[in-house]
Amino acid sequence: MSLAETTLVEGGVTAPAGCKAAGVACGIKTSGARDLALIAADSPAAAAGVFTTNLAQAAPVLVSREHLSTSGGHASAIVANSGGANACTGDDGLGHARAMADTTAAALGCDAASVLVASTGVIGVKLDMQKVGRGITMAARALSSSGGGDAARAIMTTDPFPKETASRISSAKGTFHVGGIAKGSGMIQPLMATMLGFITTDAAVSPAMLQQALSAAVEDTFNAITVDGECSTNDSVFALASGASGVTLEASDFPLLVHALKAACEPLAIGIVRGGEGATKLITIRVTGGQSDADAKVAARAIANSLLVKTAIHGGDPNWGRLVAVAGRSGSQFSLDRAVVRIGEIELFSGGAPHDERSPQAAEYLAGRDIDVTVDLGTGGSGQARMWTCDLSAEYVRINAEYRT
Amino acid sequence: MSLAETTLVEGGVTAPAGCKAAGVACGIKTSGARDLALIAADSPAAAAGVFTTNLAQAAPVLVSREHLSTSGGHASAIVANSGGANACTGDDGLGHARAMADTTAAALGCDAASVLVASTGVIGVKLDMQKVGRGITMAARALSSSGGGDAARAIMTTDPFPKETASRISSAKGTFHVGGIAKGSGMIQPLMATMLGFITTDAAVSPAMLQQALSAAVEDTFNAITVDGECSTNDSVFALASGASGVTLEASDFPLLVHALKAACEPLAIGIVRGGEGATKLITIRVTGGQSDADAKVAARAIANSLLVKTAIHGGDPNWGRLVAVAGRSGSQFSLDRAVVRIGEIELFSGGAPHDERSPQAAEYLAGRDIDVTVDLGTGGSGQARMWTCDLSAEYVRINAEYRT
Repeated sequence: MSLAETTLVEGGVTAPAGCKAAGVACGIKTSGARDLALIAADSPAAAAGVFTTNLAQAAPVLVSREHLSTSGGHASAIVANSGGANACTGDDGLGHARAMADTTAAALGCDAASVLVASTGVIGVKLDMQKVGRGITMAARALSSSGGGDAARAIMTTDPFPKETASRISSAKGTFHVGGIAKGSGMIQPLMATMLGFITTDAAVSPAMLQQALSAAVEDTFNAITVDGECSTNDSVFALASGASGVTLEASDFPLLVHALKAACEPLAIGIVRGGEGATKLITIRVTGGQSDADAKVAARAIANSLLVKTAIHGGDPNWGRLVAVAGRSGSQFSLDRAVVRIGEIELFSGGAPHDERSPQAAEYLAGRDIDVTVDLGTGGSGQARMWTCDLSAEYVRINAEYRT
Repeated sequence: MSLAETTLVEGGVTAPAGCKAAGVACGIKTSGARDLALIAADSPAAAAGVFTTNLAQAAPVLVSREHLSTSGGHASAIVANSGGANACTGDDGLGHARAMADTTAAALGCDAASVLVASTGVIGVKLDMQKVGRGITMAARALSSSGGGDAARAIMTTDPFPKETASRISSAKGTFHVGGIAKGSGMIQPLMATMLGFITTDAAVSPAMLQQALSAAVEDTFNAITVDGECSTNDSVFALASGASGVTLEASDFPLLVHALKAACEPLAIGIVRGGEGATKLITIRVTGGQSDADAKVAARAIANSLLVKTAIHGGDPNWGRLVAVAGRSGSQFSLDRAVVRIGEIELFSGGAPHDERSPQAAEYLAGRDIDVTVDLGTGGSGQARMWTCDLSAEYVRINAEYRT
């Protein structure tokens, strides 16, 4: 079933009508690189947020949750800095997150509760609010309908490349756009606190429906990736729906909205994995034959986080035994006699027995950069799941073992 | 409360009276190293087993479970080979595990159901039963009350050193011994399927009480270690109680029996971590202030498996932020405002704020080989847990990324 024709376009978060953005350098990063991003809707937009489940929540997470609740799911702007996560910074940090919203609201002429706040960078370091304040003023002046790329760069920490995407969605309800930027898990400087994703659309949609659709889209995209199994103190995904396309999505259009949000979230999520620390390969894990989708996801997540799987694929070793062992210990239902393991299209284990004669062929496949791994849990159920991960290299260890200073 | 005076002695699994052992080379390992271990009780012993929770269970695990059940918790011998895990080997593998028990029973003149079987080594490779059979015959002839060391060597795969221990327990009930050998997680050749531990004691104890005490002892020792978060297809811990000391332990002596079994299990478990792949440091994780012990263990396990924590300690970086972030996302109850993080005795985070001025002191401490890390979850509860792990080095990746052949 095709819900809509989806075409990639330029512009990132500024591709949707009614959305402007900017990314400026205000001196938080000593390198002089862009470090403050602002995304603004021309008029108050429906807004939604999905946040880290970490109980050590950073100040901007607390403030953004509060603002979404106070505003009833509306926002005029997202302000984000890189170069400092404003996490584990106590009451001062909470004050700084509030000040970021206040300054943005003053610059744009909106309520503070209409501003969502995000920070990324080192944990436990206080923000220099003089620099941040100057940055917000500069960014508010620089807002433009072609500023998406600058905003994508301004939220990078040590990501190897900026991550942005935009699509035009042509549906029976009309044509609208969805765009997004994200920053990932390039924790090359340790203590980066990490994943941010900002999505915009010019569809008109109620805040409740936007929230529900964002949660659904995130579950299969940002929540289906892992680099090292860690969940940071700052992870946040925000969505703003400006309505400026004139296309209004009703309750019956929920699948279309999820489709549109996924069109933005999926390439951003995959981009985060490709840019993972020390990563040389993108690995797509598919699990089938689960008792339920949730059960299949348990197995997929265990495989995606397994050091033995990630190192084997790094080394080009078609090590099906590790996949069997991880599926078996994952906590999902599993039947060894009926389980099947494939690397690419090559079946290496089935009917309780290996096909090691196919190892050389599988090793050749593993020399590539994009690797598919499929495990059927053999329960006879129809549950399935997909996750993306990267390989684990000695470079990952080198990056993360280096002293911070 | 001192339950007993516990003194380290020589002899490993043969320190307890009534227990003999042997370790021979029968050619499974192409290196010519010892690869078949036999432990035998002079007369049928109370027996207990704790097995992997992996659903992909190896043939020897299935057979040993069955034999413990059939015999009502008695055994005369443990036979184990290294050099091949006999896992994922289908019906042939099951036949081979049964044949190991049959051959051992014939050599010793006991029931096949009185033999516990274990294998360790590469997954998915069938055992050469001619070699294994010859090894069992040789080992049965070589059984001696000083054979514990040979047995410890015969279960090694690529462990950097053999692991054995023995203690004399002097209690109000009398003096008895407990001994043990283990093989660990030196998965230098990938696909090793992995942890084995064999415990003997000359106390007299009922099978039911031995099983319950072994489970309790394993929970705080072998189940409190991690090298890479993996759980293999073959993990087994067996205990044999010969009763030859003449000391009979009753139900009221349960704490004493657990104490005695822990005296064997704890040093073996710590030895496995010290010999972990690429490990350069032994890290003891203590979690306090949990809502319950179980909740504290959830946090301790997450910290012990965190790549970011393990790489930071490898690099000597007193990176308290990673400890806070992992505790926060672990699924345990956690209060950021009241949490405390200590590296050694040095408090680096408390009252919601860092004490980064102490970083240089903590970095100096981390240069050592034995590292203590303490996280108080700040819930005000009295739950606590302890786990042992090792650091994560580039050497770990090198070891596990190498192609098997």
